[in-house]
Amino acid sequence: MKSVRILQNLSAVISSHTSINIPATTLFLHLRTKSTCLPARAICSFTQRTNENSSYPAAIQRGKTKRQTGCLRLRALKPFSFSTSAMAKSKFEYVRQFETQDPCLPNTWIVIRLDGRNFHRFSTDHGFTKPNDERALHLMTRAAETVMNDFRDIVISYGQSDEFSFVLKKSTMLYSRRASKLMTHIVSQFSSSYVFHWAQHFPDQPLQYPPGFDGRVILYPSNKNLRDYLSWRQADCHINNLYNTCFWALVQQGGMTNTQAEERIRHTFSADKNEILFSEFGINYNNEPEMYKKGTVLVWKKVEETVTRTCRTAEDPVERPREVTKLRKKVVPLHTDIIGDVFWEEHPDILEEECF
Amino acid sequence: MKSVRILQNLSAVISSHTSINIPATTLFLHLRTKSTCLPARAICSFTQRTNENSSYPAAIQRGKTKRQTGCLRLRALKPFSFSTSAMAKSKFEYVRQFETQDPCLPNTWIVIRLDGRNFHRFSTDHGFTKPNDERALHLMTRAAETVMNDFRDIVISYGQSDEFSFVLKKSTMLYSRRASKLMTHIVSQFSSSYVFHWAQHFPDQPLQYPPGFDGRVILYPSNKNLRDYLSWRQADCHINNLYNTCFWALVQQGGMTNTQAEERIRHTFSADKNEILFSEFGINYNNEPEMYKKGTVLVWKKVEETVTRTCRTAEDPVERPREVTKLRKKVVPLHTDIIGDVFWEEHPDILEEECF
Amino acid sequence: MKSVRILQNLSAVISSHTSINIPATTLFLHLRTKSTCLPARAICSFTQRTNENSSYPAAIQRGKTKRQTGCLRLRALKPFSFSTSAMAKSKFEYVRQFETQDPCLPNTWIVIRLDGRNFHRFSTDHGFTKPNDERALHLMTRAAETVMNDFRDIVISYGQSDEFSFVLKKSTMLYSRRASKLMTHIVSQFSSSYVFHWAQHFPDQPLQYPPGFDGRVILYPSNKNLRDYLSWRQADCHINNLYNTCFWALVQQGGMTNTQAEERIRHTFSADKNEILFSEFGINYNNEPEMYKKGTVLVWKKVEETVTRTCRTAEDPVERPREVTKLRKKVVPLHTDIIGDVFWEEHPDILEEECF
Amino acid sequence: MKSVRILQNLSAVISSHTSINIPATTLFLHLRTKSTCLPARAICSFTQRTNENSSYPAAIQRGKTKRQTGCLRLRALKPFSFSTSAMAKSKFEYVRQFETQDPCLPNTWIVIRLDGRNFHRFSTDHGFTKPNDERALHLMTRAAETVMNDFRDIVISYGQSDEFSFVLKKSTMLYSRRASKLMTHIVSQFSSSYVFHWAQHFPDQPLQYPPGFDGRVILYPSNKNLRDYLSWRQADCHINNLYNTCFWALVQQGGMTNTQAEERIRHTFSADKNEILFSEFGINYNNEPEMYKKGTVLVWKKVEETVTRTCRTAEDPVERPREVTKLRKKVVPLHTDIIGDVFWEEHPDILEEECF
Repeated sequence: MKSVRILQNLSAVISSHTSINIPATTLFLHLRTKSTCLPARAICSFTQRTNENSSYPAAIQRGKTKRQTGCLRLRALKPFSFSTSAMAKSKFEYVRQFETQDPCLPNTWIVIRLDGRNFHRFSTDHGFTKPNDERALHLMTRAAETVMNDFRDIVISYGQSDEFSFVLKKSTMLYSRRASKLMTHIVSQFSSSYVFHWAQHFPDQPLQYPPGFDGRVILYPSNKNLRDYLSWRQADCHINNLYNTCFWALVQQGGMTNTQAEERIRHTFSADKNEILFSEFGINYNNEPEMYKKGTVLVWKKVEETVTRTCRTAEDPVERPREVTKLRKKVVPLHTDIIGDVFWEEHPDILEEECF
Repeated sequence: MKSVRILQNLSAVISSHTSINIPATTLFLHLRTKSTCLPARAICSFTQRTNENSSYPAAIQRGKTKRQTGCLRLRALKPFSFSTSAMAKSKFEYVRQFETQDPCLPNTWIVIRLDGRNFHRFSTDHGFTKPNDERALHLMTRAAETVMNDFRDIVISYGQSDEFSFVLKKSTMLYSRRASKLMTHIVSQFSSSYVFHWAQHFPDQPLQYPPGFDGRVILYPSNKNLRDYLSWRQADCHINNLYNTCFWALVQQGGMTNTQAEERIRHTFSADKNEILFSEFGINYNNEPEMYKKGTVLVWKKVEETVTRTCRTAEDPVERPREVTKLRKKVVPLHTDIIGDVFWEEHPDILEEECF
Repeated sequence: MKSVRILQNLSAVISSHTSINIPATTLFLHLRTKSTCLPARAICSFTQRTNENSSYPAAIQRGKTKRQTGCLRLRALKPFSFSTSAMAKSKFEYVRQFETQDPCLPNTWIVIRLDGRNFHRFSTDHGFTKPNDERALHLMTRAAETVMNDFRDIVISYGQSDEFSFVLKKSTMLYSRRASKLMTHIVSQFSSSYVFHWAQHFPDQPLQYPPGFDGRVILYPSNKNLRDYLSWRQADCHINNLYNTCFWALVQQGGMTNTQAEERIRHTFSADKNEILFSEFGINYNNEPEMYKKGTVLVWKKVEETVTRTCRTAEDPVERPREVTKLRKKVVPLHTDIIGDVFWEEHPDILEEECF
Repeated sequence: MKSVRILQNLSAVISSHTSINIPATTLFLHLRTKSTCLPARAICSFTQRTNENSSYPAAIQRGKTKRQTGCLRLRALKPFSFSTSAMAKSKFEYVRQFETQDPCLPNTWIVIRLDGRNFHRFSTDHGFTKPNDERALHLMTRAAETVMNDFRDIVISYGQSDEFSFVLKKSTMLYSRRASKLMTHIVSQFSSSYVFHWAQHFPDQPLQYPPGFDGRVILYPSNKNLRDYLSWRQADCHINNLYNTCFWALVQQGGMTNTQAEERIRHTFSADKNEILFSEFGINYNNEPEMYKKGTVLVWKKVEETVTRTCRTAEDPVERPREVTKLRKKVVPLHTDIIGDVFWEEHPDILEEECF
């Protein structure tokens, strides 16, 4: 490529206090060069060209790079040469142009949902209790708490089974709202936390291989949309849990094969499943643990904390250790209904936000 | 919402073998309903309406949901009622419309690069040796190997410092080329593997908290673009390593403060840094370990494996345990130059691909 | 490519009532073939394969094409051959996979703004009066009316100078909310209407060449965002018009050159420009035409229309021609303030919308 | 909003040579203010803040606006006040943040295809000859030529029926490769040109209403993909034209109704249609006009042009009018096969491009 050749010959070309005009096609590399090794020894100036129809060299809109139309005027203040390695980097650095921005629309709720990858097999390989394994659910919650403590713009999270949804506040500017950054950071932190805390929740069951989660970003413009999203996940939790409770009762207590159990409840409705559980196994579904029926909601709670500090008070001007009360935001797990209005009336701060 | 009311009253409305036409505005919920609880008891048919200018109800382009313009004809084959929980889910499920697809352009190389989050602090907190910590680099490589073994469409990977790039072959259809799926899965698997394998590489240094990585997807249309991308990363490795080697020599052996060392080498070129290392510290940069200077390249290698199998042969018709040789693909790490042509000539299979 | 070869040989391969399994890699072409020429003579069925990690052939999510993982079972009901031209088309049709969807996020206002291309030159070439040409503004309005009458989901439009903004209602499903379709259709209709109506507004000035407009799509989640957008455009109209009025007074009445006039008002504020206009040229800016100061707002108005129809009435059972009054939606232009609340209180229907 | 209040009070707050620190939340408006009315009288400086997790105010990545985290230090050089109208604009200008970039991936062919909207009706309303109207096809070509002359980075175009495809060279930087800009500009120019040139091609048929076209952008990474795209369109032209020629022969010469004709040829292959045309109507399809069978290809051709210029020559040092020969690029229409290799071998410059 011509531009590269010119770049490599620049040390020969540029002597003290001369100016050269470099054609537009070689502009990019020189600009890059400029930003890495020219500043101290040369001055670059640009002649803008504005006929927008012509094929001008890449106004790179993104990243730190900036390209201009027209001619670069490179003026050496004293003789200088280029460093080969920096040049090599410069020569390749055009590949950054291929990166794209993916900012989330402003003033919308950002939801990131992650799901376990092949968790059916994973749960079998690690002897999870069916239909619900309390240890596994608590581990999910623990990983989600780590995420919330790391990303404090998350206002509420909701988890069930092997999935978790995180809601970033409408006005968040975390990572400039870039979707890729948001979802990979959250999925990464969740995944590494899951492994990190494993041994504490499964003291008798070694982790056999590292688990995986996928993630996605979804935007919701209105508060109603967001509440409906969370309601959708909680309704899903209920439907699945009723199904699974019934299915495993038929298998574990009723002695059916998986296929028989599936066949038995395939076309039944909620009422039918409740009836099977009650009449055949003496199980009142309503008495099942709330965590199984409702999933886990994580919210922030302001808690008072008493710490010891060395300080003065209005009454006593001498510095001494004193007990001081502080307010601190803390993540708390709830197993409660979030479909109805009661939860939202009790936690008005989640949706209330000065917004535009 | 009117549609919800209609839905709730449908059990009253629909009796055996009658047909009702439901206006377009309520279509979505019923379709959803249909897919969850109608199949056995009712038949749905659609009257298409095609005046494209009118405001018809959401043709949902994505996901498994499918919405149609026009009128839904719901015909009950026998009397039936709706299940409340399924209905609740149906009522909320419209929120799936807000999910978007993000498929990568076909016939392009898909590169996924991940970077450590706050690894400066992480490396300090875990006592990483400066300028390079061999244990940490091997752990990165180990995590990357896990990723490649999980996603076998990755044809080459390249890592240095706290970053790793994975290249999926042009024709991959993994996760239908959806960018979100690809990057979250890879980042998740890498993160959990990093923690999973930690103790093996840092036997004397407990992991203090779960680390995080971010990820991004970049597309490259041509082989040249892809090679330039990898060259860019390897040139970056070289530049940073030369800088760091020089910086830490000045600090660790030269007794300088960080600020003094930074000041000393700020405006120097490669040649200058090589000179400082050689003349002041007797270090010949060329003799530094290849892994530090070149980073780590992961490629697939076909290896012969001898396993014992119970089988017959052409000569001996009796089944008995025999040693059999198998070809298996295995990930191997290299610390070699990938900027020049030699590497690519020696590994022609990486870029060679039947493509269109 | 193997798949093509197989396709070309299929007529030889497929005889009556035989079945062949075609490997996944050739699936796409055959599916396409199927949809163009197989229906009457063959049956296709699919064996799904679900190991999601493998490199399966393109699940094409978009357009009318649908690709599946796994194996296509092609069964001929009677002997048949392929048509060469259809085959040729099939062979190339994979290129449709490269098209992308660009649906706008549901439940957000869709704004499409178009701008004249090189209108500075265009206005000079066609002798537009400065600072405002009434004919040109009316022509813009006329073209915008045509657009609104064609796309009746537009609830309000706003224009000034050589730009026009169209607001589609939050719930519109026009073109399935695809951004490309929406913006190209609107820009196209506007452009052709501008030329179509030219002669009527410029009876003495022939159109010398076809003008161009560009377009863009912007989404606004809340009513406040939308009102602020429209306010931004109207504030822009005011600022530009005050500047231009002052500038052209200095040039046309004050005898200044363009450069002198520019220099004179460069650093002045609104108050200063008002003062110049009043003290030097006796112009009270407040008395300037509202269309110049406020731009043009297009809204829908229900109007009564009297038409003659042949019909009966309750009183008179004989069919005869009668005058009948009908309600019709009509676009009306206003030159009024849309920044304050008054306009929105007088037109509550624009923002009021049953939404979710 | 607090920030607005502060903005409105700034004139009171800022006196000569004082500095104020404005909290991050009000940053945006002030920055905007700065760029519109501060330059001459105040200096702004920024204190960066880098804790990336906090919710800092919008780093606006796009447009001309630039937002920073942290604190804005506003220092007045002399007393000044804000202009109300500029302020009003500033207050609303945040809505620009909602605009998105949509750059096309570099180093890929950009194809823009436009299609007539409701052209079935349009062609009936304007008495188009069936199956092909020569005037209409020439008008399409004329409009496409206008587009190519306006956007000289288009290297080839292909049209048939009421559609036209424009191919921008891989390296084009026209409108910074922004998809919206490219497709709207091209569709707009095509639409206005269609109306502008109507009367010349339809001297006896007045245009009754302005026609519409939609547009889309498709990217192709390889030369093969691009050629296959063009082949797909030309194969489509052939298939449709054979069908239409046969259909209208049956209707116009065979006296069938539309339904009968459709029924007759529904399940036939190319050979069958050729046979019907030949045996029943004496039409040899091969002798049909090339423009109907192949569509229209537009390419650039270098032509010699003789112009008169007043100049000197080497032999004659006196300035006088002389005939001079110039090379000029001109659009030429071809009706030729572009599926085979011959065309591409004869026009090597179309695909040959210094690229990366």
